[in-house]
Amino acid sequence: MRVGTVREIKNHEYRVGLTPESVREMVAAGNEVWVEQGAGLGIGASDADYEAAGGTIKAAAADIFAECEMVVKVKEPQAVERAQLREGQILYTYLHLAPDPEQTADLVKSGVTAIAYETVTGEGNALPLLKPMSQVAGRMSIQAGATALEKAHGGRGVLLGGVPGVLPAKVVVIGGGVVGFNAAQMAVGLGADVTILDRDPNVLERLDSHFEGRARTLYSGKAALATEVAQADLVIGAILVPGAAAPKLVTRDMLGTMMPGAVLGGRGD
Amino acid sequence: MRVGTVREIKNHEYRVGLTPESVREMVAAGNEVWVEQGAGLGIGASDADYEAAGGTIKAAAADIFAECEMVVKVKEPQAVERAQLREGQILYTYLHLAPDPEQTADLVKSGVTAIAYETVTGEGNALPLLKPMSQVAGRMSIQAGATALEKAHGGRGVLLGGVPGVLPAKVVVIGGGVVGFNAAQMAVGLGADVTILDRDPNVLERLDSHFEGRARTLYSGKAALATEVAQADLVIGAILVPGAAAPKLVTRDMLGTMMPGAVLGGRGD
Amino acid sequence: MRVGTVREIKNHEYRVGLTPESVREMVAAGNEVWVEQGAGLGIGASDADYEAAGGTIKAAAADIFAECEMVVKVKEPQAVERAQLREGQILYTYLHLAPDPEQTADLVKSGVTAIAYETVTGEGNALPLLKPMSQVAGRMSIQAGATALEKAHGGRGVLLGGVPGVLPAKVVVIGGGVVGFNAAQMAVGLGADVTILDRDPNVLERLDSHFEGRARTLYSGKAALATEVAQADLVIGAILVPGAAAPKLVTRDMLGTMMPGAVLGGRGD
Amino acid sequence: MRVGTVREIKNHEYRVGLTPESVREMVAAGNEVWVEQGAGLGIGASDADYEAAGGTIKAAAADIFAECEMVVKVKEPQAVERAQLREGQILYTYLHLAPDPEQTADLVKSGVTAIAYETVTGEGNALPLLKPMSQVAGRMSIQAGATALEKAHGGRGVLLGGVPGVLPAKVVVIGGGVVGFNAAQMAVGLGADVTILDRDPNVLERLDSHFEGRARTLYSGKAALATEVAQADLVIGAILVPGAAAPKLVTRDMLGTMMPGAVLGGRGD
Amino acid sequence: MRVGTVREIKNHEYRVGLTPESVREMVAAGNEVWVEQGAGLGIGASDADYEAAGGTIKAAAADIFAECEMVVKVKEPQAVERAQLREGQILYTYLHLAPDPEQTADLVKSGVTAIAYETVTGEGNALPLLKPMSQVAGRMSIQAGATALEKAHGGRGVLLGGVPGVLPAKVVVIGGGVVGFNAAQMAVGLGADVTILDRDPNVLERLDSHFEGRARTLYSGKAALATEVAQADLVIGAILVPGAAAPKLVTRDMLGTMMPGAVLGGRGD
Amino acid sequence: MRVGTVREIKNHEYRVGLTPESVREMVAAGNEVWVEQGAGLGIGASDADYEAAGGTIKAAAADIFAECEMVVKVKEPQAVERAQLREGQILYTYLHLAPDPEQTADLVKSGVTAIAYETVTGEGNALPLLKPMSQVAGRMSIQAGATALEKAHGGRGVLLGGVPGVLPAKVVVIGGGVVGFNAAQMAVGLGADVTILDRDPNVLERLDSHFEGRARTLYSGKAALATEVAQADLVIGAILVPGAAAPKLVTRDMLGTMMPGAVLGGRGD
Repeated sequence: MRVGTVREIKNHEYRVGLTPESVREMVAAGNEVWVEQGAGLGIGASDADYEAAGGTIKAAAADIFAECEMVVKVKEPQAVERAQLREGQILYTYLHLAPDPEQTADLVKSGVTAIAYETVTGEGNALPLLKPMSQVAGRMSIQAGATALEKAHGGRGVLLGGVPGVLPAKVVVIGGGVVGFNAAQMAVGLGADVTILDRDPNVLERLDSHFEGRARTLYSGKAALATEVAQADLVIGAILVPGAAAPKLVTRDMLGTMMPGAVLGGRGD
Repeated sequence: MRVGTVREIKNHEYRVGLTPESVREMVAAGNEVWVEQGAGLGIGASDADYEAAGGTIKAAAADIFAECEMVVKVKEPQAVERAQLREGQILYTYLHLAPDPEQTADLVKSGVTAIAYETVTGEGNALPLLKPMSQVAGRMSIQAGATALEKAHGGRGVLLGGVPGVLPAKVVVIGGGVVGFNAAQMAVGLGADVTILDRDPNVLERLDSHFEGRARTLYSGKAALATEVAQADLVIGAILVPGAAAPKLVTRDMLGTMMPGAVLGGRGD
Repeated sequence: MRVGTVREIKNHEYRVGLTPESVREMVAAGNEVWVEQGAGLGIGASDADYEAAGGTIKAAAADIFAECEMVVKVKEPQAVERAQLREGQILYTYLHLAPDPEQTADLVKSGVTAIAYETVTGEGNALPLLKPMSQVAGRMSIQAGATALEKAHGGRGVLLGGVPGVLPAKVVVIGGGVVGFNAAQMAVGLGADVTILDRDPNVLERLDSHFEGRARTLYSGKAALATEVAQADLVIGAILVPGAAAPKLVTRDMLGTMMPGAVLGGRGD
Repeated sequence: MRVGTVREIKNHEYRVGLTPESVREMVAAGNEVWVEQGAGLGIGASDADYEAAGGTIKAAAADIFAECEMVVKVKEPQAVERAQLREGQILYTYLHLAPDPEQTADLVKSGVTAIAYETVTGEGNALPLLKPMSQVAGRMSIQAGATALEKAHGGRGVLLGGVPGVLPAKVVVIGGGVVGFNAAQMAVGLGADVTILDRDPNVLERLDSHFEGRARTLYSGKAALATEVAQADLVIGAILVPGAAAPKLVTRDMLGTMMPGAVLGGRGD
Repeated sequence: MRVGTVREIKNHEYRVGLTPESVREMVAAGNEVWVEQGAGLGIGASDADYEAAGGTIKAAAADIFAECEMVVKVKEPQAVERAQLREGQILYTYLHLAPDPEQTADLVKSGVTAIAYETVTGEGNALPLLKPMSQVAGRMSIQAGATALEKAHGGRGVLLGGVPGVLPAKVVVIGGGVVGFNAAQMAVGLGADVTILDRDPNVLERLDSHFEGRARTLYSGKAALATEVAQADLVIGAILVPGAAAPKLVTRDMLGTMMPGAVLGGRGD
Repeated sequence: MRVGTVREIKNHEYRVGLTPESVREMVAAGNEVWVEQGAGLGIGASDADYEAAGGTIKAAAADIFAECEMVVKVKEPQAVERAQLREGQILYTYLHLAPDPEQTADLVKSGVTAIAYETVTGEGNALPLLKPMSQVAGRMSIQAGATALEKAHGGRGVLLGGVPGVLPAKVVVIGGGVVGFNAAQMAVGLGADVTILDRDPNVLERLDSHFEGRARTLYSGKAALATEVAQADLVIGAILVPGAAAPKLVTRDMLGTMMPGAVLGGRGD
C-alpha cells in the first residue's frame, strides 16, 4: 500500500503522523511511504532522516492527498485538507467529530474512509490510541491550572501546594479515568488538596488504594459535585464523552456554583 | 540514699515509679531501694523480680513514706499520700500543679521537696521526661477520637479514613509539638483529612516537610482556628501550658463554633 | 412496582434500605415507593426529605410488609418482621443465612423470594454489594482492636504503633481480600507490625507489591498460622465463608495457641 | 510610634506591608497606624477592614511618607518614593541593594534608617523574613519552568514528569537551601529527574535522607556543574548571594555549556 | 499413582521437588510417595519428616527412576538421570530446553512424558510455576550486581545508591515483567537511578504508576536500548524467551555499546 | 608548606589522600604539593592530571616521606611507612589506634605529629571526616550481609526481602548513628524486617519519625539485645567506640545467643 503523511497545518501542532521509526517499520512490511517536505521538523526529524528510513520526500501535501491510499495525520483535517480527500482513500487521525458537524459533513461528502484514533477500541473497552494523549492532557492540565492561578496571569494568586503555614489550593478532579488519574498525580505531587469524583466503585477503590489518603475519592452525584466545585480553586474536567474532545469541559450549570476566580482546567488532545 | 517506690492508687494507673531494671541500676550506684508489695504488678513485675534486682519488699506504703529520703512515683500524690509527706524528703513524680490548688497547698504545707517530671528541662527547652508521655498521648488521642466518632459510642458515625467514595473525617490538630505531631501521624495513617495549626514558622516548616501534603499546616490565629474548628469532625488540643496537664483541652470559646457532634480529643499524662 | 422500606429495628443499626436519593431514582423509573415514618432518622434523612424525593410516608412497618411487592432493608429480618413476609413478595437485604438456621426456616416457610446482598455476584466473582461493608469492617476492625488492647478496656496495655524505643504491636491478618487489605492498611497506618496470610499467590503478590515491606505477606498453612497467631497481639479474621457473616472469626482451634491477652478482631456487616 | 503603610506601586506587586491583622496588633501595642487608601486591595482587604482594626485611612502616600516615623512596605522604594524618605524615619521593607547602586545612593542621601527584611538574621544564621519568600520562589520556579518548557511557550516541548514510556525532564537545582529544597520537592512531585548540587556535606546529607533516592544529591564543583547543566532540560539557580536578589541566577559562564533550549529558572522575592 | 522425588545432583541446587507438606497432601489424595534418602537435607527436612508425612524412604535414586510412574524434580535431569528415564513415565521439573539440544534429544529418545514447570500456563498467559522463581531471580539479580560492582570483586567501585553528594549507579532493567519489576523494586530500594525498558504500553503504565518517579519507564527500541545501556553501570536482562532460561541475558550486540566495566546482571531459575 | 601524598600500599585500598582537585586548591593557597608516581590510578587520576593541577610527580614514596612537612594518606601507615616518619612532620590520615598498640608505639617513637581523621571533631560532637566513610560502611554492610546469607556463599539461604508469601529476613541494627541509619535505609529498601536499637531517646525519636513504621526502634538494654539478636538473620554492629575501627563488631557475649547461621555484618573504614 502507498501510505503518506503530511505536515500538520493547525496552529500550535508540532507532532507528525509518522516518525522515521514508523516509516522504517512500514517499509519493512512492504509498503511505500511518502512524506511531505519538512513534515517532521516539529519533532526534530529532518527529511534526510525519513529518507534514511526508506521514505520518499514529496514537495507538496497535494501530491500525497492525490496519490496515497492511506493518509496518516495527527489532527482532524482542516478545510483545505478535507477538500482533497476522496473515495477509496483511508484517513487515519484524531477526528473528535461530536462537536464538529461541519467536518463531519465534509468527510461524509468526500467518501473517504476515516478512522478516528480516539475511537479505536481494545480489550476491556480501553482506548489504546487515545490513552497516551490523555496521559499528557491530564498531566499538563495541572501545570496549566497552576499557571492560570498566578496573580500575574489573572488568577487568584494561589499556589497549588501552599507553603508551610498557608493552606494548599483545593483541586477537584471530575472523573477518575486516565486524564483524571494523571491530573491527580501531578496535583498531589505539587502538594495540593485533591478530591477525585467518579461513579464507578471499582475506579474509586483503585484510586483510594493508590493514593492512600494523599487524594480523597468521592462518589459523584449532583449534590457532591455542587459542594466540591463550590469550594474549588481549580476544577479539572476529566470525563470522556466518546467521540468528543477529551477531556470534556465542566458543564455550564456547574459553573454557577463556583467561587469567583476559580480556574477551569482540562485540555484535550 | 534510701529510695522507695509505692503502688499507685489512682484509678486506671498501671505504671510504677521504678522498674526492676531501674532498681538494679540504683542499687549498683550505692543506694538502698524499698518497694511496696505488689507495686509492679500492673507492668507484670513481681516482688521476686524486685528482690532479684536488689530491692527490699515492704508490706505497706506507709513504711516507705516514713523511712525513705526520696519517693519515686508516677501520678501526683493523692490526699492520703500527701498526708504522709514530710520536710527533708524528696518526691519525684508527675505533679501538674497548675489546675490543682488543693494539691499545691498540701505539698507546700508538708515541706517536701517535690520535683515534677513534666518541668524537668533539657537542652533547647526540651522536656525529656514529659516527651514519652506526650508521644503516647498524641498517638492515643486519635484512637480515642476514632472510637468516640462511632455511632455506637454516641458519635456522628464517621470513619476517620472514610472508604472509597466516602470522604474521610476532618481532623484539626491544634499545636504541632510532640503531642500534635504524633496525633497527626496516626490520623494521617488512618487516612483522615488532617490540618495542623501552630504559630512557630520553624515548626510549620518541619511539619510541612515531613508530611509533604499528607497533612496540611496552617499558621494559627483567631480566624484560622475558628474556621478550621467549625469544619472539624475531630479536634485534638495539643498545646502545652507549662505546669498544667498536657495536652491542654480546647478552650471554651472555640467550642461555640464547633459542629454539633464534633469530638474533642486530647489526653494528658 | 410498589417498593417499600422500613425502619431497622435491630440494635445499633442506624442505616436504612433506601436513601432519599435512591427513592428519587426509583420513582423516576416508574415505581411507587413507601417509606416507614422515621426510617431515615439514623442517617439524618427526615420524612420530608423522602416526600420531596417522591416517596409516600406510612405510619407503620406493617402497612409496608402487607402492601409492597418488594421490601428493601439492611439487616436480616427479625422474628417479628419474618412473621409478616409472604409468598409473591421480594425481600432485598443482607441475610447471612449460613449460621442462622432459624431465620432460614422462617424464610422458607414464608414463601418470600429473598435476595441476599452478600451473595449478589458480579464479574470475576466479585461481590459488589458486600464490598463496601467489607471495606468498613476491615477499617473498623483495627480501631476496635486498638481500643480493646488498651489497659482501661481490659487489654494488654499495648499501643498498636508503639512509640520511639518501644516495639509496635504484632497484628496478624488472616485473609488478604477486601476486609484483610483494608485492615492491613489501617494497621500499617498506625505503625503496627503487620503480617497478612493468604493462600492465593496472586493475592500475596498484589499485597506484597502494594505494601512494599510495610506489611509482610505469608503463605498460609496450619504451621504458619499457628506460629503467627501465637506471637500476635491482635488477630484479624478476614476470611469470607460465602453466605456466613463476613469476616469469619478465627476458629476455635487457633485460639488455643494464642498468647493470653491477645485480642480477637473482626466485625461483620 | 506612628507607623504607616502605602500602596505598592511596582508592577505586578499585589502584597501590602501591613495586613489588617498586623494593624490590630500594632494598635494594641500602643502605636498609631496610618494606611494609604486602597493599600490592601491586592490581598482582598478593604479600607473598612483596616479601620475596623484600628487604622486610619489616608488619601495619599505623601501624607504617610511625610508624617510617619516608620514606613512598612514590601518592595524596595521606587524613585518617586525614595524622594520622600527623610532623616529620622525608619523604612522597613525588602531592599536587595547589592545589584542596585542607584537605590543605595538615594537611600544614603535621604538619611533614612532602612532595614532590609532579607538581612534580618535569626539563630543559626537563619533569615526568618526571607524564608517564606524563598519557599514561594522555590515552589513557583518549577511551575514557571514547566510552562517555559511547553512548545507553545517557545520551549523544547518536554513534560517535566514525562509519561509512561517517555523519560521525564532532567532538572538540575543549584543550591540545596530553602529555595532549592522547595524547588526540588515540586520537581520530584511532578515526576522529574532531579539532581541537587551543594557544597555543604550537612545539607547534602539532609537532602539525601529526605528524598531517599527520589532526587539525587551531588557535591558541587566546576566539573560537576558543567556536566549536570549540559544535560539539563531545566536549571534552577538557588544560591543566595547575601544582599542580592535571591535566588541568584545561574552565572553566564555556565550558560555556554547548556543544551540549546534548556530553560533557566529561578525567581527572587 | 506412585510418585517419587530424588536428591538434586546439580551443583549449588539445594531445593527438592517435594516438601514433606506436599508429600502429606499427595498421600492424602491416595498416592504412594517414594523419597530418596537425604533428598530434603538442603531445605532442612529429614528423612523422618518425610516418613511422618507418609512417604517411603528409598536408598537410591535408581529405585525411584525404575519404579515410579511420576518423578518430581527441580532442575533439568542430568545425563546420568536422563539415562534412567523411560517410556510411560512422567517427569515433572524445570527443563529450559531451548538452549539445550543435548537434553532435548535424550528426553525424546527416552520416551518419557516431560512437563516443564516453566511452560505451565494459567489464565491470561501467566506462568504460575515460573513466577516465584522469577521473583527470586529479579530480587537476587540486584544483590548479585551490587556485589559485582564492588572494587574488591573486580567491579568499578560504584555503590548502587551512592552516598550523600555522590551520584548513585545507573541501573537499566530490560523488560518490565516479573523479573524486571522485582529487580527494579530492589534497585530503587537501594537508592539507585533506575530505568526500565519495555514495549508493552500497559506494562509501562503499570510500572509508571507503581514507581511514581522513583524509577523511569522508557519505550524500548534499538536506539533507546543503545543509549541507555551505554550509560549504565548495571544492566539487568529481564526478557523471557519462552522455553529458554529466564531471564534471558542481554544479547551480544548490545554489549558493544556498554561502558567498560559495566556489570551484566540477570539470573535464571 | 610542602605537602605530599603517597600511593596506598595496604591490600584492597584504591583511594588516595589528595585528588587532583584538592591539589589544585592547596597550590592555589600557596603550598607546594608532591605526589608519588601512580598514586591516583585507583581513582582514575593520572600523573598528568596531578601535574595539570600544579602538583610535582615524584618517583618514590621515600622522597615524599623524607622531604614533605605534611604527608596526607588514607589508611594507617604500614610498618615500612612508619619507619620513614620523623619528628617535626605531620601525618594526616585514618589511624584507628585503639585496637593497634604496635602502630601506636611506632608513631610515638617516630615523633611525628599524627592527626587521625576519625577523631577530628566538629560542632555538636560530629565527626565530619569519619561520616562519609560511615555512610559507605553502613550501606555496604547490607549488601555484604545479603550476599553472606546466600546459600552459595555458605549462608542460610535467606533473601533479605523475602518474596510474596515468604517472610523477609530479620535484620537487627545495633546503634542508630550514621552507620546504623544508612544500614537501616538499605535494609528497609530491600524489604527486610528491620529493628534498630539505641539508648539515646532523641536518636530513637528521629529514626521513628524518619521510618514511620518501615523500621522499628527499640530502647537498647541487655535483655532487649539478647532477644532481638537471638531472632536475627543478620546483625549489623554499628556502635562507634571512639578511636577504634568503626563500626565496632558485635561483642562476643552476644554471639552465644544468636541463631546458628546468622550473619554478622559491619564494615569499618
